[in-house]
Amino acid sequence: MTRILITHVDVVTLDAAGTVLRDRSIAIDGNTIVAAGDIPIDFTPDRIINGYGQVALPGFVNAHCHSPMTYERGWAEDLPFPRWLNEKIWVAESALTSDDVYRGAALAACEMIRSGVVAFNDHYFYMDRVAEVVKKSGLKAGLTWCVFGLGDDREVGANLDGTLDFIDRWQGRANGRIKLLLGPHSPYICPPDFLARIAALAHARNLPIHLHVSESPEQVDNSLKAHGQTPIGHLASLGVFDGPCIAAHCLAVSDDDLDILARQHVTVAHTPITYMKLAMGVNDLSRFFARGINVAIGTDGPGSNADMDLPAAIRQTVILQKHEQRNPEAVPGDLALRMATQNGARAIGLERTGVIAPGYAADLILIDTDRPHFLPRHNLISSLVHCTKAADVTHVIVDGQLIYRKGELLTLDEDRIKYEAERGAFNMVSRAMQPVREYRG
Amino acid sequence: MTRILITHVDVVTLDAAGTVLRDRSIAIDGNTIVAAGDIPIDFTPDRIINGYGQVALPGFVNAHCHSPMTYERGWAEDLPFPRWLNEKIWVAESALTSDDVYRGAALAACEMIRSGVVAFNDHYFYMDRVAEVVKKSGLKAGLTWCVFGLGDDREVGANLDGTLDFIDRWQGRANGRIKLLLGPHSPYICPPDFLARIAALAHARNLPIHLHVSESPEQVDNSLKAHGQTPIGHLASLGVFDGPCIAAHCLAVSDDDLDILARQHVTVAHTPITYMKLAMGVNDLSRFFARGINVAIGTDGPGSNADMDLPAAIRQTVILQKHEQRNPEAVPGDLALRMATQNGARAIGLERTGVIAPGYAADLILIDTDRPHFLPRHNLISSLVHCTKAADVTHVIVDGQLIYRKGELLTLDEDRIKYEAERGAFNMVSRAMQPVREYRG
Repeated sequence: MTRILITHVDVVTLDAAGTVLRDRSIAIDGNTIVAAGDIPIDFTPDRIINGYGQVALPGFVNAHCHSPMTYERGWAEDLPFPRWLNEKIWVAESALTSDDVYRGAALAACEMIRSGVVAFNDHYFYMDRVAEVVKKSGLKAGLTWCVFGLGDDREVGANLDGTLDFIDRWQGRANGRIKLLLGPHSPYICPPDFLARIAALAHARNLPIHLHVSESPEQVDNSLKAHGQTPIGHLASLGVFDGPCIAAHCLAVSDDDLDILARQHVTVAHTPITYMKLAMGVNDLSRFFARGINVAIGTDGPGSNADMDLPAAIRQTVILQKHEQRNPEAVPGDLALRMATQNGARAIGLERTGVIAPGYAADLILIDTDRPHFLPRHNLISSLVHCTKAADVTHVIVDGQLIYRKGELLTLDEDRIKYEAERGAFNMVSRAMQPVREYRG
Repeated sequence: MTRILITHVDVVTLDAAGTVLRDRSIAIDGNTIVAAGDIPIDFTPDRIINGYGQVALPGFVNAHCHSPMTYERGWAEDLPFPRWLNEKIWVAESALTSDDVYRGAALAACEMIRSGVVAFNDHYFYMDRVAEVVKKSGLKAGLTWCVFGLGDDREVGANLDGTLDFIDRWQGRANGRIKLLLGPHSPYICPPDFLARIAALAHARNLPIHLHVSESPEQVDNSLKAHGQTPIGHLASLGVFDGPCIAAHCLAVSDDDLDILARQHVTVAHTPITYMKLAMGVNDLSRFFARGINVAIGTDGPGSNADMDLPAAIRQTVILQKHEQRNPEAVPGDLALRMATQNGARAIGLERTGVIAPGYAADLILIDTDRPHFLPRHNLISSLVHCTKAADVTHVIVDGQLIYRKGELLTLDEDRIKYEAERGAFNMVSRAMQPVREYRG
C-alpha cells in the first residue's frame, strides 16, 4: 500500500459545494484519498509530489468510446456518413484481428492517460484484448463487447454466450478496476427479442447495458414504422432501461423520450466532436439537464472524431451548447467538469470516484496552470474548462497508483505501442483493401 | 545571415499542387527558403535541425486578434454579450495602462509562438507597446491602433493623428516584420465621415484597413435604419473597401454583401471559437468560398474565446462548418491549413509567405507527429487539421530566425512575462473595480 502526499496544490474538489482549496495538500493511502486540505501530522508518505502551480482535479472518465478505433484515425475523412461507414470503416474493420484490437486499445490508452483520463467506457470487439490493456495500464474501465443479435458470429464480434464468457473471465479482475457491461449495438440493428433477452440477462446478472440510441431522425422514423415507438420508447418497453444503462448520443429525442430517460435513470453519453465532424446535428442538453438526466462526456472513436482528448471534448461540449442554444450562459461554471468526471464514473458503476475528498477513490490528475495559455488565473474553473490542453496534464493517479508523470507513461511501453499500432493499422487497411477472398480465407 | 538545414522531414508545402514531400530536407539562407526537397551539394548550414518524425508546415497566421486581451482571459464568463461587454470587458479596460498592453501582448506572444504562429494581425490600443513585443519576439505582425472617431481621445485609444504618428514610428521597423494598418473599430461605432476620411487616408498612404464588420443581425438592422444600407454596403459606399481590407467576422451577410466583398477583394477573418463561446451564431463559409473570397482564420481576443491556440481554431473552423452546413464534406483536405497560413499572410501584406518552396519567406514550423494522438498517419493532412495540438509544435522559424525549440522560447523571457502579466492583470481588474474617481484621477 503506497502512501502519496501531494503538496502545495490548488484542489478543485468537485464536491457538492464546489469547494476549491488553495495551496493545500492531498493524502492518499492505498487506493483511497484519506485527506484533502489539512493532513494528519502522523501521515508518513512513501512519495511526495510537489503540486505548486498545479491544480488537482478528479480524473476524467471517457463515457463512451471505441478505443481500438485509433486504427481508423484519419482513415475516413470528409465523407458523408453512409460512405464513411460502408466504404471506409466497415471495410477496414473487416480485416481486424484480435491483435489489432490490443494494439489499437494500447495506443488509445497512451493517448487517454496523457489527456488526464482515469477511466473509459469502451464498446467494441475482442474485448479480452482491451481488458489486457486496462490491466496493464492501471486505468479503470467499463468494457462492453458489442453484439448484434443477428444470428451470425461475425469475425470481429461474438455471440451473446461469448460475451457472457468474457464477462465471467474478467469480472472483478485487475483489482476491481474493470467493470463489465452488456453491449447490444443499438435498437436499429438488434432485433427486439434479442434486446429483451439482453435486458433480462442484465437484470439477472446485475450488469449495466451500454448501447447506441437515437443518432438521427431517420432512426426515429424507422423505429416508428417498425415498432410503433421511438427508439427510446421501444427500448423502455423491452426492459432495456430497467437497470443501469448508458445510452450513447440520444440526438433525436422527444420530450416523452426524455421523460423516460429521466424516470429510468439512464445515463446519456455525449460526444460532441463526432456530432460535428460527421455533421449529425446535436441535442440541446438544457432539455436533459432540466429533467435531471445524468449526462456524461465521451470522445467516441477516433475513426469519427479523430482523437481521445477529454479536455478538448469538455470545451467542445460547452461551446457547442452555447452556440446551439444561442445562449452564452449555457453549461456554466464547473458543470462540464462534473459531466466529464463524476457523471461518467457513476454511469459505469465506479463507486466513490469523481470527487477529491476523504474516502473517495484516488483517481485524480494534476494540471499545470503556470502556462501562458492559462494565465492570468482570474477564474480557475473557467480556465480549466476553456484553456486546459491535454499536454497540461502532468500526473495521473488511478486507484492510488501513479501511472503518468511529466511526459512519461509509467505502466506502458509507449514507443513499442506507437510503432506496433501504426504498423498494424497500415497492415489492416492494406489487407482490407484486398479482394474479399484474400482476407476471409 | 544564418543558414539552417532541416533534414529528414515530411514537408506539407501548401503549394498550388498540394505537394507533400516525405523524408526530405529544407534549406534556409537568411530569411528565405532556398531549397525544399533536394538540397544543393554546396549548401553549408550553420545549424542543422533533425526533422525525423516531424512535419514542416508554413507557420500559422492569426488573422484577427486583440493580443493584450490575454489580461481578460477567464474574466467574463458565461455571460450574455451586453453584460460581457459592459459589466466586465469595458470595466476592466477602463483601468488599462500602456504597460499592461506590453505585458498582455508579451504573454500572447509566448502562447502564440508555442502554438505555431509566425504572424498575427492585432487590433487594440497603445500599439507601440505591441510593436515592441513584435520586435523583441521575432514574430511578424500586422498592427492596427483601434480608433473610434467619436471626437474624444479615450484614455486607452488615440485619435487618428496619434495613429498616423504610430504608423510613422514603426513602418519598416523590425527588419520589415511589422506591417501597419488603419483600424476604425467598426461601422456601428465610427461615424460615416470618419470612415470616409480613413478610407481616403488608406488610399493616399497605401495602408490596409482592419475593422469589425456585421457581427449580428441587429447591427445590420441598425445600419439599414441609419444609412439605408447594410454595414458592408455602407462601408463600400464610403470607399473603405477600395484598397486592401480585413473585415473581421462578417457573420450576418446578404448575397449582395458577399458579392461586394468578393469584387473588392476584402479578406474575411473568421474566429469560430468566439462565435460559439459568446453564442453569436456563425456564417456559412461555403457562400464565401463559392465567390472566391479570401477567408483567413483568427483566434480573436482571449477575453472572448479564452485562448490564442491556432491549431484549435483550425479544427474548430472545420468541424463547426461541417456541423453548421450539415455537410461532412465541408472544408475538406488542406483548405483550413491554407486559410490559417497563406490566406492570413496575404491579408496583412506579408509577401511570399505561407508556402514552403524556394524563394518564399522562411516562416515555418515543425510539428511532431510521432505522438499517440496523431498515429497512425493514414492521412497526414487530415491529422494536421484534426489532431495537431499546440504542444505538438517543436520549432518555430520566422524570417529565418529560430524563435522556439522544444519547449523553449528563444527570444522572450517567458517566466518574467508570465509573472508580470498575471500580476498586472490582477492589478488592472482591482483598479477597475474601484469607484470611478479612483482610476480616472
